Amino acid sequence: MPQSYSSQSMTNNVDAATFKFSVVNEAIFSCTVLQEAFKRYEPLIFGRRPETLYFHSQARRNVGVSGDIDELVVQLGKPCNDVDAPSLQSDESYKLTVQNGQAMLSANELWGVIRGLETFSQIVYQSPTGGMVVNNTVISDFPRFNHRGVMLDTSRHYVSKKTILKNLDAMTQNKYNVFHWHIVDDPSFPYQSANFPELSQKGAYDPETHVYTQSDIQEIIEYARLRGIRVVPEFDSPGHTQSWGKGRPDLLTKCYSGSSPNGQFGPVDPSNNATFTFLKQFFMEVGNAFPDKYIHLGGDEVSFACWQSNPDVQAFVKRMGYSDYSQVEQYYMQQLLDIVGGLGKGYQIWQEVIDNGAKVQADTVVEVWKAGWEDEMNKVTKLGYKTLLATCWYLNYISYGSDWTKYYGCEPYNFPGTEDQKKLIQGGETCMWGEYVDDTNLMSRLWPRASAVAERLWSAQSVSNVQEATPRFIEHRCRMVGRGFPAEPINGPGFCREEYIVD
Amino acid sequence: MPQSYSSQSMTNNVDAATFKFSVVNEAIFSCTVLQEAFKRYEPLIFGRRPETLYFHSQARRNVGVSGDIDELVVQLGKPCNDVDAPSLQSDESYKLTVQNGQAMLSANELWGVIRGLETFSQIVYQSPTGGMVVNNTVISDFPRFNHRGVMLDTSRHYVSKKTILKNLDAMTQNKYNVFHWHIVDDPSFPYQSANFPELSQKGAYDPETHVYTQSDIQEIIEYARLRGIRVVPEFDSPGHTQSWGKGRPDLLTKCYSGSSPNGQFGPVDPSNNATFTFLKQFFMEVGNAFPDKYIHLGGDEVSFACWQSNPDVQAFVKRMGYSDYSQVEQYYMQQLLDIVGGLGKGYQIWQEVIDNGAKVQADTVVEVWKAGWEDEMNKVTKLGYKTLLATCWYLNYISYGSDWTKYYGCEPYNFPGTEDQKKLIQGGETCMWGEYVDDTNLMSRLWPRASAVAERLWSAQSVSNVQEATPRFIEHRCRMVGRGFPAEPINGPGFCREEYIVD
Repeated sequence: MPQSYSSQSMTNNVDAATFKFSVVNEAIFSCTVLQEAFKRYEPLIFGRRPETLYFHSQARRNVGVSGDIDELVVQLGKPCNDVDAPSLQSDESYKLTVQNGQAMLSANELWGVIRGLETFSQIVYQSPTGGMVVNNTVISDFPRFNHRGVMLDTSRHYVSKKTILKNLDAMTQNKYNVFHWHIVDDPSFPYQSANFPELSQKGAYDPETHVYTQSDIQEIIEYARLRGIRVVPEFDSPGHTQSWGKGRPDLLTKCYSGSSPNGQFGPVDPSNNATFTFLKQFFMEVGNAFPDKYIHLGGDEVSFACWQSNPDVQAFVKRMGYSDYSQVEQYYMQQLLDIVGGLGKGYQIWQEVIDNGAKVQADTVVEVWKAGWEDEMNKVTKLGYKTLLATCWYLNYISYGSDWTKYYGCEPYNFPGTEDQKKLIQGGETCMWGEYVDDTNLMSRLWPRASAVAERLWSAQSVSNVQEATPRFIEHRCRMVGRGFPAEPINGPGFCREEYIVD
Repeated sequence: MPQSYSSQSMTNNVDAATFKFSVVNEAIFSCTVLQEAFKRYEPLIFGRRPETLYFHSQARRNVGVSGDIDELVVQLGKPCNDVDAPSLQSDESYKLTVQNGQAMLSANELWGVIRGLETFSQIVYQSPTGGMVVNNTVISDFPRFNHRGVMLDTSRHYVSKKTILKNLDAMTQNKYNVFHWHIVDDPSFPYQSANFPELSQKGAYDPETHVYTQSDIQEIIEYARLRGIRVVPEFDSPGHTQSWGKGRPDLLTKCYSGSSPNGQFGPVDPSNNATFTFLKQFFMEVGNAFPDKYIHLGGDEVSFACWQSNPDVQAFVKRMGYSDYSQVEQYYMQQLLDIVGGLGKGYQIWQEVIDNGAKVQADTVVEVWKAGWEDEMNKVTKLGYKTLLATCWYLNYISYGSDWTKYYGCEPYNFPGTEDQKKLIQGGETCMWGEYVDDTNLMSRLWPRASAVAERLWSAQSVSNVQEATPRFIEHRCRMVGRGFPAEPINGPGFCREEYIVD
């Protein structure tokens, strides 16, 4: 739901044969993002029989024709070029006006055009007489939050490039703008490193078929950029690194039973200087491979038992004068943060890094994921850090029935804190952890449930009534199905005019 | 897991280029079921790289080569022909012997060959050196239960013919033998009747795109027959019939508020003789369209409130001298049972019909679906009726995690009753009700969870150890994925050598 939306009962005919996108000033539009967006949206507008639209069922529909629309005129506030990429600071606002045979979309930045094209594609519908029409409409829109992410976990199960790309299409059509790529974790290391090929050679489920090559990654990043989506990779450490140890066993702490190693490995070994030499080289590569300002450094769920058992770490603790193993974690993260900060990168981190007292850069984005998020968001924003909410939106957890209302009802501002603290909330992330998800079920499990979170993060805080959202949600589910996404039914019995076509 | 299985460490090479199915006596094999089965199983055996097999990891694998297998010789106990169809009495037993370059599959009936071919396809695997091999193996196998069904609900959401056919493939590869087709219900009536076209014209979600034509139905039945699967259609009444009323409003009871109809409709109206005239004609058509001996007549969840409000039904109750509206339900079901029995058909029914005291044919199959199934199965078998268990296997209900162990652990014999009573247990059904399921997610939600039920219904009662079943289950999930089914991951992190290929 746009921030401001009004429509009238008069409609305009939109004829696929004559319709085109046009631009106010040709010279400033010589960029791939726009050209590709125009190519994408023409079939999305005309290639299907859209459902009866919620938007227009709000107005009286189709009571008279006020004109024929042959073009959507696009106006952009500044020249675009092929190095433009979305960022946390992107301006995604746009204005869309359809009036008596004229249609105009204007935005300050490219990314607003991308969002506005999606909206335009949603308000064109098939009239009862068969032709495509759009009501006279005025929309002025912008996102409530700048960071609206979907996290995929490609370590617990491998997810194909094809599914990742398809999911980026679903994301942009739901106005998501960050793909948080939890690319490696304990079970497997599918990132194929240019400088450390042994990591995926030994750590991937299969070094040939279950990896992301550098070329795959560049393709995914470019595909995302064209859709106004940032790719923030997560290389979680010092815990969740078992798969790193397959290729580089020296990296992990050897766990001891009594006086000898027991064959198990723990978190990254912070007592070994070679650890940080490797991490610096590795993150330099990652920083180049992923051009976004931010890298997610993880830092969650570090178990101390193995560190405590290891004589080298014990000696290190003594040497450093630590009284507590959380100081080891703090030390490790501090070294890592300094390395990555030194590469000119910002970082996103899980909440534990702050809870453990590490000193982070001012522009750090802290992701809150544990229960009791209200107090944590209060705490993190009091410290002055940019914050994301994830706790409410672990969509890998499933339950029977229309559970989207639960995700829809979670309000990021519902924590004790001042207005200034709330300004630090950058948005949130829908998380799809991979224990029970792979190419067989990822898309149908994520969509349309993630659409509920998308509206929470885009629309005004006051847009929160489930009864009002339900028909929008049902319609949008069918829109996605009609566009070829296996978005599952989620509101009890019903149907879509165009059902999903199985292969 | 077969009833009896032994294998040795010696393997036989199986070369796709030279392998063929052959028959002992050509004359008795001139039937489509076998010819099509041979065509199906060749690519299933050779068209993929099977996982390391559980079966053979039980024996020492591949320690020596005992021969080359150029053919699987199939022996059948009696001539087959093109009118053969599976039934509740089918003999699905088979013997499979692989020994020193010889492979033999023998069965009394066609359906045993179908099951044995599936088993053979599962024991051939890729050796570490790349070739396909099969260990010396002796299998003697038969199902524990004769009725192993999957119920799909195509009324709450429409399911395409393509998905139904694909599901029949998955079913036969899991040795299921009954497709219980819950084809119509309150929300929609997708069955396109030859004699009463108004039923789907008015009652389907869409009379053109959301229906099953007579030709669709014949195609589905034949596809199922070729795979040894019966198709038992369910036309549930007198409740669950709201969609019937769209095309035939006279069929349903008009509900009253005070002295006038309130626009609502209740169950089928038993006070109107025209009801039974229609039902007789309708079920005559259904009986012809679906050649299986059995039709499922439903009979579940009948609400009395509307009957109680209606003056005609009130008068009927008075005329009949009834003291209770459950007698109205009993009357209705008795009329219907007599009609359908008179057509030479048997019927399957939900447990309420027996609970309400209707007199049913001796060969009736009663399906137990409510909680407290142990007592109900005791009661129904004491009355001498054939019984199916469904309560444990409502797979439309989902929960987070490896829930297949719950389905696997439900034992149909675990009710108080004599051995003679237990002999009346015909098996059970996996039910996939359609509130939250359509083409977008049906297959991944049903499989491989339904495989757990499949083994419970096929294998010996003693095959019930979850730890032993787990590697079999994981391997089978990957087998299905490799064969092109989106069987979801269900045992935590992991991978398949061949992952599902998304379209």
